[in-house]
Amino acid sequence: MQVYEKELKVRAEEVNAILDRYAPAGECPAVLKEAMVYSLQAGGKRIRPVLLLETARLCGGRRETAEVLAAALEMIHTYSLIHDDLPAMDDDTLRRGRPTNHVVYGEGMAVLAGDGLLSYAFELMLESIPYGTDEIVPYLRAVKRIAAAAGHNGMIAGQAMDLLSEGKEPDAEVLQYIHRHKTGAILSASVLAAAIAAGADERQLDALERYAAAIGLAFQLADDVLDIRGDKGKVGKTIGKDQAAQKLTYPLVYGMDQTLAKLQELNVEAAESLASFGAEARFLIETADFICKRDY
Amino acid sequence: MQVYEKELKVRAEEVNAILDRYAPAGECPAVLKEAMVYSLQAGGKRIRPVLLLETARLCGGRRETAEVLAAALEMIHTYSLIHDDLPAMDDDTLRRGRPTNHVVYGEGMAVLAGDGLLSYAFELMLESIPYGTDEIVPYLRAVKRIAAAAGHNGMIAGQAMDLLSEGKEPDAEVLQYIHRHKTGAILSASVLAAAIAAGADERQLDALERYAAAIGLAFQLADDVLDIRGDKGKVGKTIGKDQAAQKLTYPLVYGMDQTLAKLQELNVEAAESLASFGAEARFLIETADFICKRDY
Repeated sequence: MQVYEKELKVRAEEVNAILDRYAPAGECPAVLKEAMVYSLQAGGKRIRPVLLLETARLCGGRRETAEVLAAALEMIHTYSLIHDDLPAMDDDTLRRGRPTNHVVYGEGMAVLAGDGLLSYAFELMLESIPYGTDEIVPYLRAVKRIAAAAGHNGMIAGQAMDLLSEGKEPDAEVLQYIHRHKTGAILSASVLAAAIAAGADERQLDALERYAAAIGLAFQLADDVLDIRGDKGKVGKTIGKDQAAQKLTYPLVYGMDQTLAKLQELNVEAAESLASFGAEARFLIETADFICKRDY
Repeated sequence: MQVYEKELKVRAEEVNAILDRYAPAGECPAVLKEAMVYSLQAGGKRIRPVLLLETARLCGGRRETAEVLAAALEMIHTYSLIHDDLPAMDDDTLRRGRPTNHVVYGEGMAVLAGDGLLSYAFELMLESIPYGTDEIVPYLRAVKRIAAAAGHNGMIAGQAMDLLSEGKEPDAEVLQYIHRHKTGAILSASVLAAAIAAGADERQLDALERYAAAIGLAFQLADDVLDIRGDKGKVGKTIGKDQAAQKLTYPLVYGMDQTLAKLQELNVEAAESLASFGAEARFLIETADFICKRDY
Protein backbone atom coordinates (compact mmCIF):
# COMPACT_ATOMS: atom_id res chain seq x y z
CA MET A 1 0.00 0.00 0.00
CA GLN A 2 1.32 3.42 -0.89
CA VAL A 3 2.14 6.08 1.68
CA TYR A 4 -0.88 8.19 0.74
CA GLU A 5 -3.28 5.29 1.00
CA LYS A 6 -1.96 4.46 4.47
CA GLU A 7 -2.50 8.06 5.55
CA LEU A 8 -6.02 8.04 4.09
CA LYS A 9 -6.76 4.87 6.00
CA VAL A 10 -5.62 6.41 9.27
CA ARG A 11 -7.81 9.42 8.62
CA ALA A 12 -10.77 7.22 7.65
CA GLU A 13 -10.36 5.48 11.02
CA GLU A 14 -10.54 8.87 12.72
CA VAL A 15 -13.77 9.53 10.83
CA ASN A 16 -15.13 6.14 11.90
CA ALA A 17 -14.43 7.04 15.52
CA ILE A 18 -16.24 10.37 15.07
CA LEU A 19 -19.21 8.59 13.48
CA ASP A 20 -19.31 6.10 16.37
CA ARG A 21 -19.34 9.00 18.81
CA TYR A 22 -22.27 10.61 17.01
CA ALA A 23 -24.09 7.35 16.20
CA PRO A 24 -27.88 7.68 16.38
CA ALA A 25 -29.09 7.00 19.92
CA GLY A 26 -32.41 7.31 21.75
CA GLU A 27 -35.45 5.17 22.39
CA CYS A 28 -36.55 4.62 18.80
CA PRO A 29 -37.14 1.04 17.58
CA ALA A 30 -33.84 -0.85 17.69
CA VAL A 31 -34.21 -2.05 14.10
CA LEU A 32 -34.42 1.53 12.83
CA LYS A 33 -31.25 2.51 14.68
CA GLU A 34 -29.57 -0.68 13.49
CA ALA A 35 -30.52 0.02 9.87
CA MET A 36 -29.14 3.56 10.12
CA VAL A 37 -25.91 2.37 11.72
CA TYR A 38 -25.55 -0.58 9.30
CA SER A 39 -25.04 1.72 6.34
CA LEU A 40 -23.18 4.38 8.29
CA GLN A 41 -20.64 1.79 9.42
CA ALA A 42 -20.36 0.17 6.01
CA GLY A 43 -17.08 2.00 5.67
CA GLY A 44 -15.79 3.14 2.37
CA LYS A 45 -12.88 5.54 2.07
CA ARG A 46 -14.66 8.37 3.92
CA ILE A 47 -13.30 10.78 1.30
CA ARG A 48 -15.90 13.47 2.04
CA PRO A 49 -15.41 13.78 5.81
CA VAL A 50 -11.64 13.40 5.37
CA LEU A 51 -11.70 16.31 2.90
CA LEU A 52 -13.83 18.34 5.28
CA LEU A 53 -11.52 17.78 8.26
CA GLU A 54 -8.39 18.50 6.23
CA THR A 55 -9.82 21.69 4.71
CA ALA A 56 -10.81 22.85 8.20
CA ARG A 57 -7.22 22.29 9.35
CA LEU A 58 -5.86 24.10 6.28
CA CYS A 59 -8.09 27.12 6.94
CA GLY A 60 -7.58 27.19 10.70
CA GLY A 61 -11.09 26.00 11.63
CA ARG A 62 -11.93 24.56 15.03
CA ARG A 63 -11.62 20.77 15.06
CA GLU A 64 -14.79 20.13 17.14
CA THR A 65 -16.90 22.13 14.70
CA ALA A 66 -15.38 20.36 11.72
CA GLU A 67 -16.07 16.97 13.30
CA VAL A 68 -19.78 17.74 13.63
CA LEU A 69 -19.99 18.93 10.02
CA ALA A 70 -17.99 15.91 8.84
CA ALA A 71 -20.27 13.47 10.66
CA ALA A 72 -23.40 15.19 9.35
CA LEU A 73 -22.08 15.26 5.80
CA GLU A 74 -21.25 11.55 5.86
CA MET A 75 -24.75 10.84 7.19
CA ILE A 76 -26.25 12.77 4.28
CA HIS A 77 -24.01 10.92 1.84
CA THR A 78 -25.00 7.60 3.42
CA TYR A 79 -28.73 8.35 3.29
CA SER A 80 -28.37 9.16 -0.42
CA LEU A 81 -26.72 5.80 -1.05
CA ILE A 82 -29.48 3.92 0.82
CA HIS A 83 -32.22 5.61 -1.22
CA ASP A 84 -30.21 5.35 -4.45
CA ASP A 85 -29.86 1.59 -3.98
CA LEU A 86 -33.64 1.04 -3.61
CA PRO A 87 -35.34 -1.17 -6.20
CA ALA A 88 -37.27 1.88 -7.46
CA MET A 89 -33.99 3.71 -8.05
CA ASP A 90 -30.72 1.97 -9.04
CA ASP A 91 -31.84 -1.38 -7.63
CA ASP A 92 -28.44 -2.32 -6.23
CA THR A 93 -28.04 -5.32 -3.96
CA LEU A 94 -24.35 -4.90 -3.17
CA ARG A 95 -22.55 -1.84 -1.80
CA ARG A 96 -19.05 -1.67 -0.32
CA GLY A 97 -18.97 -5.45 -0.43
CA ARG A 98 -22.09 -5.91 1.70
CA PRO A 99 -25.78 -6.42 0.91
CA THR A 100 -27.49 -3.06 0.55
CA ASN A 101 -29.76 -1.69 3.26
CA HIS A 102 -33.07 -2.72 1.70
CA VAL A 103 -31.79 -6.25 1.12
CA VAL A 104 -31.09 -6.60 4.84
CA TYR A 105 -33.92 -4.56 6.38
CA GLY A 106 -36.59 -4.47 3.68
CA GLU A 107 -37.57 -1.56 1.46
CA GLY A 108 -39.81 0.22 3.92
CA MET A 109 -37.21 0.27 6.68
CA ALA A 110 -34.51 1.33 4.20
CA VAL A 111 -36.61 4.34 3.19
CA LEU A 112 -36.97 5.22 6.88
CA ALA A 113 -33.29 4.62 7.67
CA GLY A 114 -32.39 7.07 4.90
CA ASP A 115 -34.96 9.60 6.11
CA GLY A 116 -33.61 9.13 9.62
CA LEU A 117 -30.01 9.80 8.63
CA LEU A 118 -30.93 12.94 6.69
CA SER A 119 -33.00 14.29 9.58
CA TYR A 120 -30.37 13.37 12.14
CA ALA A 121 -27.65 15.15 10.16
CA PHE A 122 -29.58 18.40 10.59
CA GLU A 123 -30.52 17.63 14.17
CA LEU A 124 -26.86 17.09 15.01
CA MET A 125 -25.74 20.29 13.29
CA LEU A 126 -28.50 22.23 15.07
CA GLU A 127 -27.56 20.74 18.44
CA SER A 128 -23.97 21.84 17.96
CA ILE A 129 -24.47 25.54 17.21
CA PRO A 130 -21.62 27.47 18.90
CA TYR A 131 -23.92 29.93 20.71
CA GLY A 132 -22.30 32.99 22.17
CA THR A 133 -19.14 32.81 20.06
CA ASP A 134 -17.96 34.64 16.92
CA GLU A 135 -18.18 31.34 15.12
CA ILE A 136 -21.96 31.22 15.06
CA VAL A 137 -22.55 33.08 11.78
CA PRO A 138 -19.86 31.26 9.75
CA TYR A 139 -21.02 27.97 11.28
CA LEU A 140 -24.65 28.51 10.29
CA ARG A 141 -23.57 29.57 6.78
CA ALA A 142 -21.63 26.33 6.49
CA VAL A 143 -24.70 24.35 7.59
CA LYS A 144 -26.76 26.19 5.01
CA ARG A 145 -24.18 25.36 2.35
CA ILE A 146 -24.51 21.67 3.23
CA ALA A 147 -28.32 21.90 3.12
CA ALA A 148 -28.22 23.49 -0.32
CA ALA A 149 -25.76 20.87 -1.59
CA ALA A 150 -28.02 18.07 -0.35
CA GLY A 151 -31.23 19.63 -1.62
CA HIS A 152 -33.42 19.60 -4.69
CA ASN A 153 -31.10 21.96 -6.56
CA GLY A 154 -28.04 20.00 -5.45
CA MET A 155 -27.56 16.28 -5.05
CA ILE A 156 -31.24 15.40 -5.43
CA ALA A 157 -31.40 17.28 -8.74
CA GLY A 158 -28.59 15.05 -9.99
CA GLN A 159 -30.35 11.90 -8.82
CA ALA A 160 -33.59 13.00 -10.47
CA MET A 161 -31.82 13.75 -13.76
CA ASP A 162 -30.02 10.42 -13.54
CA LEU A 163 -33.36 8.64 -13.09
CA LEU A 164 -34.91 10.57 -15.98
CA SER A 165 -32.02 9.88 -18.37
CA GLU A 166 -31.94 6.09 -18.08
CA GLY A 167 -32.34 4.42 -21.45
CA LYS A 168 -32.16 7.75 -23.30
CA GLU A 169 -29.65 8.77 -25.97
CA PRO A 170 -26.23 9.81 -24.58
CA ASP A 171 -26.18 13.60 -24.17
CA ALA A 172 -23.05 15.43 -23.00
CA GLU A 173 -24.94 18.28 -21.36
CA VAL A 174 -27.23 16.02 -19.36
CA LEU A 175 -24.25 13.94 -18.34
CA GLN A 176 -22.39 16.98 -17.05
CA TYR A 177 -25.48 18.10 -15.15
CA ILE A 178 -25.77 14.72 -13.43
CA HIS A 179 -22.07 14.67 -12.51
CA ARG A 180 -22.02 18.20 -11.21
CA HIS A 181 -25.05 17.64 -9.01
CA LYS A 182 -25.20 13.99 -8.00
CA THR A 183 -21.59 13.65 -6.90
CA GLY A 184 -20.16 17.12 -7.24
CA ALA A 185 -22.49 18.99 -4.91
CA ILE A 186 -21.69 17.03 -1.75
CA LEU A 187 -18.00 16.72 -2.57
CA SER A 188 -17.81 20.49 -3.06
CA ALA A 189 -19.71 21.05 0.15
CA SER A 190 -17.15 18.91 2.03
CA VAL A 191 -14.45 21.35 1.11
CA LEU A 192 -16.44 24.59 1.06
CA ALA A 193 -18.46 24.07 4.25
CA ALA A 194 -15.22 23.50 6.18
CA ALA A 195 -13.70 26.66 4.70
CA ILE A 196 -16.82 28.75 5.34
CA ALA A 197 -17.08 27.57 8.95
CA ALA A 198 -13.40 28.39 9.44
CA GLY A 199 -13.97 31.93 8.15
CA ALA A 200 -11.79 31.54 5.05
CA ASP A 201 -11.36 34.67 2.89
CA GLU A 202 -12.64 35.16 -0.68
CA ARG A 203 -9.34 34.22 -2.30
CA GLN A 204 -9.16 30.97 -0.32
CA LEU A 205 -12.80 30.18 -1.08
CA ASP A 206 -12.25 30.73 -4.82
CA ALA A 207 -9.23 28.44 -4.84
CA LEU A 208 -11.07 25.74 -2.91
CA GLU A 209 -14.12 26.11 -5.15
CA ARG A 210 -11.92 25.39 -8.21
CA TYR A 211 -10.30 22.46 -6.44
CA ALA A 212 -13.67 21.04 -5.38
CA ALA A 213 -15.13 21.32 -8.89
CA ALA A 214 -12.14 19.44 -10.32
CA ILE A 215 -12.22 16.58 -7.82
CA GLY A 216 -16.01 16.39 -7.97
CA LEU A 217 -15.95 15.70 -11.69
CA ALA A 218 -12.88 13.45 -11.39
CA PHE A 219 -14.63 11.37 -8.75
CA GLN A 220 -17.58 10.64 -11.00
CA LEU A 221 -15.39 9.94 -14.03
CA ALA A 222 -13.31 7.50 -12.02
CA ASP A 223 -16.51 5.83 -10.82
CA ASP A 224 -17.70 5.42 -14.38
CA VAL A 225 -14.35 3.94 -15.42
CA LEU A 226 -14.45 1.55 -12.48
CA ASP A 227 -17.92 0.39 -13.43
CA ILE A 228 -16.47 -0.79 -16.74
CA ARG A 229 -12.96 -1.88 -15.81
CA GLY A 230 -13.12 -2.45 -12.09
CA ASP A 231 -12.63 -5.56 -10.06
CA LYS A 232 -15.77 -6.41 -8.08
CA GLY A 233 -13.71 -7.50 -5.08
CA LYS A 234 -11.88 -4.18 -4.91
CA VAL A 235 -14.76 -1.91 -5.82
CA GLY A 236 -17.18 -3.68 -3.47
CA LYS A 237 -20.22 -3.24 -5.66
CA THR A 238 -21.77 -4.81 -8.68
CA ILE A 239 -19.68 -4.13 -11.78
CA GLY A 240 -21.21 -3.29 -15.16
CA LYS A 241 -24.51 -2.15 -13.63
CA ASP A 242 -24.41 1.27 -15.27
CA GLN A 243 -23.76 -0.29 -18.64
CA ALA A 244 -26.52 -2.84 -18.20
CA ALA A 245 -28.98 -0.12 -17.19
CA GLN A 246 -27.82 2.02 -20.15
CA LYS A 247 -26.92 4.75 -17.71
CA LEU A 248 -25.34 7.86 -19.05
CA THR A 249 -21.61 7.69 -18.30
CA TYR A 250 -18.60 9.70 -19.39
CA PRO A 251 -16.94 6.76 -21.23
CA LEU A 252 -20.23 6.09 -23.04
CA VAL A 253 -20.39 9.67 -24.34
CA TYR A 254 -16.68 10.42 -24.87
CA GLY A 255 -15.03 7.01 -25.05
CA MET A 256 -12.52 5.56 -22.60
CA ASP A 257 -9.37 7.27 -23.92
CA GLN A 258 -10.82 10.73 -23.66
CA THR A 259 -12.18 9.94 -20.20
CA LEU A 260 -8.73 8.93 -18.96
CA ALA A 261 -7.18 12.03 -20.55
CA LYS A 262 -9.80 14.21 -18.83
CA LEU A 263 -8.91 12.63 -15.49
CA GLN A 264 -5.26 13.62 -15.97
CA GLU A 265 -6.31 17.14 -16.83
CA LEU A 266 -8.48 17.41 -13.71
CA ASN A 267 -5.59 16.15 -11.59
CA VAL A 268 -3.41 19.02 -12.84
CA GLU A 269 -6.25 21.52 -12.38
CA ALA A 270 -6.82 20.43 -8.78
CA ALA A 271 -3.14 20.82 -7.90
CA GLU A 272 -2.81 24.20 -9.62
CA SER A 273 -5.87 25.62 -7.92
CA LEU A 274 -4.29 25.12 -4.50
CA ALA A 275 -0.87 26.61 -5.40
CA SER A 276 -1.45 29.63 -3.15
CA PHE A 277 -1.69 27.39 -0.07
CA GLY A 278 1.86 26.13 -0.62
CA ALA A 279 3.11 22.99 1.11
CA GLU A 280 0.15 22.98 3.50
CA ALA A 281 -2.08 21.77 0.65
CA ARG A 282 -0.08 18.57 0.21
CA PHE A 283 -2.75 16.18 1.48
CA LEU A 284 -5.55 17.76 -0.56
CA ILE A 285 -3.41 17.60 -3.70
CA GLU A 286 -2.51 13.99 -3.03
CA THR A 287 -6.21 13.25 -2.51
CA ALA A 288 -6.98 14.65 -5.96
CA ASP A 289 -4.22 12.48 -7.37
CA PHE A 290 -5.63 9.45 -5.58
CA ILE A 291 -9.14 10.12 -6.91
CA CYS A 292 -7.85 10.55 -10.47
CA LYS A 293 -5.79 7.37 -10.37
CA ARG A 294 -8.10 4.95 -8.54
CA ASP A 295 -7.46 1.24 -9.08
CA TYR A 296 -7.60 0.73 -12.81
CA MET B 1 -70.59 24.82 7.12
CA GLN B 2 -70.03 25.82 10.71
CA VAL B 3 -68.41 29.10 11.74
CA TYR B 4 -65.21 27.37 12.89
CA GLU B 5 -64.83 25.41 9.69
CA LYS B 6 -65.18 28.60 7.65
CA GLU B 7 -62.48 30.24 9.74
CA LEU B 8 -60.22 27.20 9.35
CA LYS B 9 -60.73 27.34 5.60
CA VAL B 10 -59.72 31.00 5.47
CA ARG B 11 -56.61 30.22 7.48
CA ALA B 12 -55.81 27.21 5.29
CA GLU B 13 -55.96 29.55 2.29
CA GLU B 14 -53.45 31.82 4.02
CA VAL B 15 -51.19 28.80 4.47
CA ASN B 16 -51.60 27.88 0.80
CA ALA B 17 -50.50 31.39 -0.17
CA ILE B 18 -47.44 31.07 2.10
CA LEU B 19 -46.60 27.69 0.57
CA ASP B 20 -46.93 29.15 -2.93
CA ARG B 21 -44.55 31.93 -1.94
CA TYR B 22 -41.99 29.42 -0.68
CA ALA B 23 -42.58 26.82 -3.40
CA PRO B 24 -39.40 25.02 -4.47
CA ALA B 25 -37.68 26.96 -7.25
CA GLY B 26 -34.33 26.72 -9.04
CA GLU B 27 -32.90 24.95 -12.05
CA CYS B 28 -33.51 21.36 -10.96
CA PRO B 29 -35.36 19.00 -13.33
CA ALA B 30 -38.92 20.29 -13.81
CA VAL B 31 -40.44 16.90 -12.99
CA LEU B 32 -38.77 16.87 -9.56
CA LYS B 33 -40.11 20.32 -8.74
CA GLU B 34 -43.51 19.32 -10.08
CA ALA B 35 -43.58 16.17 -7.94
CA MET B 36 -42.65 18.17 -4.84
CA VAL B 37 -45.30 20.81 -5.56
CA TYR B 38 -47.94 18.22 -6.49
CA SER B 39 -48.07 16.85 -2.97
CA LEU B 40 -47.46 20.19 -1.30
CA GLN B 41 -50.46 21.66 -3.11
CA ALA B 42 -52.65 18.63 -2.52
CA GLY B 43 -54.31 20.67 0.17
CA GLY B 44 -55.80 19.12 3.23
CA LYS B 45 -56.86 21.17 6.21
CA ARG B 46 -53.36 22.52 6.90
CA ILE B 47 -53.97 21.93 10.61
CA ARG B 48 -50.25 21.93 11.48
CA PRO B 49 -49.25 25.25 9.91
CA VAL B 50 -52.53 26.81 11.07
CA LEU B 51 -51.73 25.71 14.64
CA LEU B 52 -48.21 27.07 14.30
CA LEU B 53 -49.34 30.48 13.05
CA GLU B 54 -52.05 30.77 15.71
CA THR B 55 -49.71 29.77 18.54
CA ALA B 56 -47.19 32.35 17.32
CA ARG B 57 -49.93 35.00 17.43
CA LEU B 58 -51.00 33.86 20.89
CA CYS B 59 -47.44 34.10 22.22
CA GLY B 60 -46.58 37.36 20.45
CA GLY B 61 -44.17 35.86 17.91
CA ARG B 62 -43.19 37.66 14.72
CA ARG B 63 -45.46 36.69 11.81
CA GLU B 64 -42.66 36.42 9.20
CA THR B 65 -40.73 33.98 11.37
CA ALA B 66 -43.83 31.92 12.02
CA GLU B 67 -44.61 31.76 8.30
CA VAL B 68 -41.20 30.26 7.52
CA LEU B 69 -41.57 27.67 10.28
CA ALA B 70 -45.14 26.90 9.17
CA ALA B 71 -44.07 26.37 5.56
CA ALA B 72 -41.14 24.18 6.59
CA LEU B 73 -43.29 22.11 8.93
CA GLU B 74 -45.90 21.48 6.24
CA MET B 75 -43.11 20.43 3.85
CA ILE B 76 -41.87 17.92 6.41
CA HIS B 77 -45.40 16.64 6.96
CA THR B 78 -45.90 16.35 3.20
CA TYR B 79 -42.63 14.47 2.65
CA SER B 80 -43.67 11.99 5.34
CA LEU B 81 -46.97 11.37 3.56
CA ILE B 82 -45.23 10.79 0.22
CA HIS B 83 -42.86 8.22 1.72
CA ASP B 84 -45.61 6.69 3.85
CA ASP B 85 -47.75 6.10 0.76
CA LEU B 86 -44.97 4.20 -1.08
CA PRO B 87 -45.69 0.58 -2.01
CA ALA B 88 -42.95 -0.52 0.41
CA MET B 89 -44.71 1.33 3.23
CA ASP B 90 -48.51 1.78 3.43
CA ASP B 91 -48.98 1.27 -0.32
CA ASP B 92 -51.69 3.91 -0.68
CA THR B 93 -52.88 5.01 -4.09
CA LEU B 94 -55.27 7.74 -3.00
CA ARG B 95 -54.57 10.71 -0.72
CA ARG B 96 -56.72 13.79 -0.22
CA GLY B 97 -58.86 12.61 -3.12
CA ARG B 98 -55.99 12.47 -5.61
CA PRO B 99 -53.64 9.72 -6.81
CA THR B 100 -50.61 9.53 -4.50
CA ASN B 101 -47.23 10.87 -5.58
CA HIS B 102 -45.73 7.55 -6.66
CA VAL B 103 -48.81 6.70 -8.72
CA VAL B 104 -48.32 9.91 -10.72
CA TYR B 105 -44.52 10.21 -10.83
CA GLY B 106 -43.26 6.68 -10.21
CA GLU B 107 -41.68 5.29 -7.07
CA GLY B 108 -38.16 6.56 -7.68
CA MET B 109 -39.27 10.14 -8.25
CA ALA B 110 -41.61 9.95 -5.24
CA VAL B 111 -38.68 8.95 -3.01
CA LEU B 112 -36.72 11.92 -4.37
CA ALA B 113 -39.66 14.34 -4.06
CA GLY B 114 -39.94 13.38 -0.39
CA ASP B 115 -36.19 13.72 0.13
CA GLY B 116 -36.36 17.07 -1.65
CA LEU B 117 -39.13 18.42 0.58
CA LEU B 118 -37.35 17.35 3.77
CA SER B 119 -34.07 18.93 2.65
CA TYR B 120 -35.78 22.07 1.43
CA ALA B 121 -37.59 22.52 4.75
CA PHE B 122 -34.20 22.80 6.45
CA GLU B 123 -32.70 24.89 3.66
CA LEU B 124 -35.59 27.34 3.98
CA MET B 125 -35.29 27.56 7.77
CA LEU B 126 -31.52 28.07 7.48
CA GLU B 127 -31.97 30.78 4.84
CA SER B 128 -34.33 32.65 7.13
CA ILE B 129 -32.20 32.92 10.27
CA PRO B 130 -32.83 36.36 11.82
CA TYR B 131 -29.14 37.30 12.06
CA GLY B 132 -28.29 40.26 14.24
CA THR B 133 -31.53 40.23 16.23
CA ASP B 134 -32.48 38.95 19.68
CA GLU B 135 -34.66 36.41 17.97
CA ILE B 136 -31.80 34.30 16.67
CA VAL B 137 -31.41 31.97 19.68
CA PRO B 138 -35.14 31.26 20.17
CA TYR B 139 -35.51 30.85 16.41
CA LEU B 140 -32.71 28.29 16.18
CA ARG B 141 -34.12 26.43 19.20
CA ALA B 142 -37.46 26.25 17.43
CA VAL B 143 -35.79 24.87 14.30
CA LYS B 144 -34.02 22.30 16.44
CA ARG B 145 -37.35 21.32 18.01
CA ILE B 146 -38.78 20.73 14.53
CA ALA B 147 -35.73 18.68 13.54
CA ALA B 148 -36.07 16.48 16.63
CA ALA B 149 -39.80 16.02 16.03
CA ALA B 150 -39.15 14.93 12.44
CA GLY B 151 -36.22 12.69 13.29
CA HIS B 152 -35.52 9.08 14.16
CA ASN B 153 -36.66 9.57 17.75
CA GLY B 154 -39.74 11.49 16.63
CA MET B 155 -41.99 10.93 13.64
CA ILE B 156 -39.72 8.39 11.95
CA ALA B 157 -39.66 6.27 15.12
CA GLY B 158 -43.44 6.11 14.92
CA GLN B 159 -43.39 5.13 11.26
CA ALA B 160 -40.82 2.43 11.94
CA MET B 161 -42.85 1.01 14.83
CA ASP B 162 -45.96 1.14 12.67
CA LEU B 163 -44.18 -0.82 9.95
CA LEU B 164 -42.86 -3.34 12.47
CA SER B 165 -46.25 -3.89 14.14
CA GLU B 166 -48.26 -4.78 11.02
CA GLY B 167 -49.92 -8.15 11.34
CA LYS B 168 -48.85 -8.49 14.98
CA GLU B 169 -51.12 -8.94 18.01
CA PRO B 170 -52.78 -5.71 19.19
CA ASP B 171 -50.65 -4.21 21.98
CA ALA B 172 -51.76 -1.07 23.82
CA GLU B 173 -48.23 0.08 24.60
CA VAL B 174 -47.01 -0.24 21.03
CA LEU B 175 -50.12 1.52 19.82
CA GLN B 176 -49.53 4.45 22.14
CA TYR B 177 -45.90 4.64 21.03
CA ILE B 178 -46.93 4.83 17.37
CA HIS B 179 -49.54 7.50 18.05
CA ARG B 180 -47.27 9.64 20.17
CA HIS B 181 -44.49 9.58 17.59
CA LYS B 182 -46.01 9.18 14.15
CA THR B 183 -48.65 11.89 14.48
CA GLY B 184 -48.01 13.44 17.86
CA ALA B 185 -44.43 14.59 17.35
CA ILE B 186 -45.06 16.91 14.40
CA LEU B 187 -48.37 18.15 15.79
CA SER B 188 -46.67 19.02 19.08
CA ALA B 189 -43.85 20.69 17.22
CA SER B 190 -46.38 22.89 15.37
CA VAL B 191 -47.46 24.36 18.66
CA LEU B 192 -44.19 24.24 20.57
CA ALA B 193 -41.86 25.51 17.86
CA ALA B 194 -44.06 28.58 17.44
CA ALA B 195 -44.05 29.19 21.20
CA ILE B 196 -40.29 28.66 21.50
CA ALA B 197 -39.54 31.01 18.58
CA ALA B 198 -41.81 33.61 20.18
CA GLY B 199 -39.89 33.37 23.46
CA ALA B 200 -42.80 31.97 25.49
CA ASP B 201 -42.15 31.43 29.21
CA GLU B 202 -42.06 28.09 31.06
CA ARG B 203 -45.65 28.30 32.24
CA GLN B 204 -46.89 28.97 28.71
CA LEU B 205 -44.72 26.19 27.29
CA ASP B 206 -46.07 23.71 29.87
CA ALA B 207 -49.66 24.62 29.05
CA LEU B 208 -49.05 24.33 25.32
CA GLU B 209 -47.21 21.04 25.79
CA ARG B 210 -50.28 19.59 27.54
CA TYR B 211 -52.54 20.96 24.83
CA ALA B 212 -50.33 19.56 22.06
CA ALA B 213 -50.18 16.11 23.66
CA ALA B 214 -53.98 16.00 23.90
CA ILE B 215 -54.65 17.06 20.30
CA GLY B 216 -51.85 14.87 18.99
CA LEU B 217 -53.45 11.76 20.42
CA ALA B 218 -56.95 12.96 19.49
CA PHE B 219 -55.86 13.48 15.90
CA GLN B 220 -54.69 9.90 15.54
CA LEU B 221 -57.74 8.47 17.30
CA ALA B 222 -60.02 10.43 14.99
CA ASP B 223 -58.05 9.16 12.02
CA ASP B 224 -58.47 5.59 13.18
CA VAL B 225 -62.21 6.10 13.64
CA LEU B 226 -62.48 7.64 10.18
CA ASP B 227 -60.69 4.66 8.65
CA ILE B 228 -63.52 2.46 9.94
CA ARG B 229 -66.54 4.73 9.72
CA GLY B 230 -65.50 7.41 7.26
CA ASP B 231 -66.92 8.32 3.91
CA LYS B 232 -64.26 7.97 1.19
CA GLY B 233 -65.47 11.10 -0.57
CA LYS B 234 -65.10 13.20 2.55
CA VAL B 235 -61.92 11.63 3.89
CA GLY B 236 -60.23 11.68 0.49
CA LYS B 237 -58.32 8.46 0.99
CA THR B 238 -58.92 4.76 0.84
CA ILE B 239 -61.22 3.63 3.65
CA GLY B 240 -60.66 0.41 5.58
CA LYS B 241 -57.00 0.20 4.61
CA ASP B 242 -55.75 0.00 8.18
CA GLN B 243 -58.19 -2.78 8.93
CA ALA B 244 -57.26 -4.70 5.80
CA ALA B 245 -53.56 -4.39 6.61
CA GLN B 246 -54.29 -5.44 10.23
CA LYS B 247 -52.73 -2.21 11.39
CA LEU B 248 -52.72 -1.46 15.05
CA THR B 249 -55.45 1.08 15.73
CA TYR B 250 -57.08 2.43 18.88
CA PRO B 251 -60.54 1.00 18.06
CA LEU B 252 -58.93 -2.40 17.42
CA VAL B 253 -57.31 -2.42 20.86
CA TYR B 254 -59.96 -0.63 22.93
CA GLY B 255 -63.14 -0.90 20.89
CA MET B 256 -65.09 1.91 19.28
CA ASP B 257 -67.05 3.07 22.34
CA GLN B 258 -63.97 3.56 24.45
CA THR B 259 -62.22 5.33 21.57
CA LEU B 260 -65.05 7.83 21.24
CA ALA B 261 -65.11 8.35 25.02
CA LYS B 262 -61.35 8.97 24.99
CA LEU B 263 -61.82 11.60 22.28
CA GLN B 264 -64.28 13.47 24.50
CA GLU B 265 -61.85 13.30 27.39
CA LEU B 266 -59.01 14.68 25.26
CA ASN B 267 -61.24 17.52 24.10
CA VAL B 268 -61.81 18.58 27.71
CA GLU B 269 -58.11 18.17 28.53
CA ALA B 270 -57.09 20.37 25.60
CA ALA B 271 -59.46 23.15 26.63
CA GLU B 272 -58.46 22.98 30.31
CA SER B 273 -54.77 23.12 29.54
CA LEU B 274 -55.16 26.52 27.88
CA ALA B 275 -57.32 28.08 30.63
CA SER B 276 -54.52 30.47 31.64
CA PHE B 277 -54.53 32.09 28.19
CA GLY B 278 -58.18 33.17 28.64
CA ALA B 279 -60.26 34.24 25.66
CA GLU B 280 -57.18 34.55 23.42
CA ALA B 281 -57.02 30.75 23.26
CA ARG B 282 -60.44 30.50 21.62
CA PHE B 283 -59.23 29.35 18.21
CA LEU B 284 -56.85 26.72 19.60
CA ILE B 285 -59.63 25.33 21.82
CA GLU B 286 -62.05 25.25 18.90
CA THR B 287 -59.40 23.47 16.85
CA ALA B 288 -59.16 20.76 19.51
CA ASP B 289 -62.93 20.47 19.44
CA PHE B 290 -62.87 20.21 15.66
CA ILE B 291 -60.21 17.49 15.75
CA CYS B 292 -62.14 15.51 18.36
CA LYS B 293 -65.41 15.71 16.46
CA ARG B 294 -64.31 15.18 12.86
CA ASP B 295 -66.97 13.98 10.41
CA TYR B 296 -68.45 10.87 11.96
